[in-house]
Amino acid sequence: MDPRISFVTLACPDLDAVRAFYVDGLGWPLEVDVPGEVLMIRVGERLVLSLWSEAGFAAEVGPVRRGEGLVPMTLSHNVASPAEVDAVLAEARAAGAPTVEDGRAREWGGYSGYFADPAGFRWEVAHNPQEIGTSVVPPRSG
Amino acid sequence: MDPRISFVTLACPDLDAVRAFYVDGLGWPLEVDVPGEVLMIRVGERLVLSLWSEAGFAAEVGPVRRGEGLVPMTLSHNVASPAEVDAVLAEARAAGAPTVEDGRAREWGGYSGYFADPAGFRWEVAHNPQEIGTSVVPPRSG
Repeated sequence: MDPRISFVTLACPDLDAVRAFYVDGLGWPLEVDVPGEVLMIRVGERLVLSLWSEAGFAAEVGPVRRGEGLVPMTLSHNVASPAEVDAVLAEARAAGAPTVEDGRAREWGGYSGYFADPAGFRWEVAHNPQEIGTSVVPPRSG
Repeated sequence: MDPRISFVTLACPDLDAVRAFYVDGLGWPLEVDVPGEVLMIRVGERLVLSLWSEAGFAAEVGPVRRGEGLVPMTLSHNVASPAEVDAVLAEARAAGAPTVEDGRAREWGGYSGYFADPAGFRWEVAHNPQEIGTSVVPPRSG
């Protein structure tokens, strides 16, 4: 098994709410649109974000964990400067992100903030000046 | 905000257990190795899987959800044939995956199975013959 992620699938209780955020708010194009079932958005050359109805997810994968606290996972969107972090967080806020935590300097040497999508999934928006961080930012963002 | 995921970060209660699985078991190379804190593995040209200590995650992002049931998210690893699905699931089992669900035909038209890593995160191993599915499989897997 080679080290490779092809899809990131998020179980979403309300697909209309995530559609309003990602598609109408952020303007991300859909490659697959099956209303009420699944929305798919390309988020890398060979990477797709799949927003799956929680009912469909539960039927195929299993029942999801309920309760307080965060899903123990974040998706990050890395950019080339702290100013770009602030700009992206402002876009997320304008698109209707229900929670936005402003950017700040981090002890690991970068600058980042977080927002939640309408299903509660956390995105980190980060400037990571280390080699691993710069390696993920496409040249056009530089 | 352009549609782009740079890092997928998983909060792991026991980094030694996930190291044993991903690094020793599957043989995935580490690009960043800070024992007890974080392990980073490249899983795409501009995509990194970050295995972060749950304590570090909780301190920066917030407390994680506890309880029964699955994290409402899967990572998928797409391949070019049903036979490759079975082969990858066998590799995961040999690497110590605590749960493996054998491949089967799915109502969405493909063939897939699942395994859990030692922290409980679910991976789907899939052959998806639709355009979106073939688009994520690198040419060398074909």
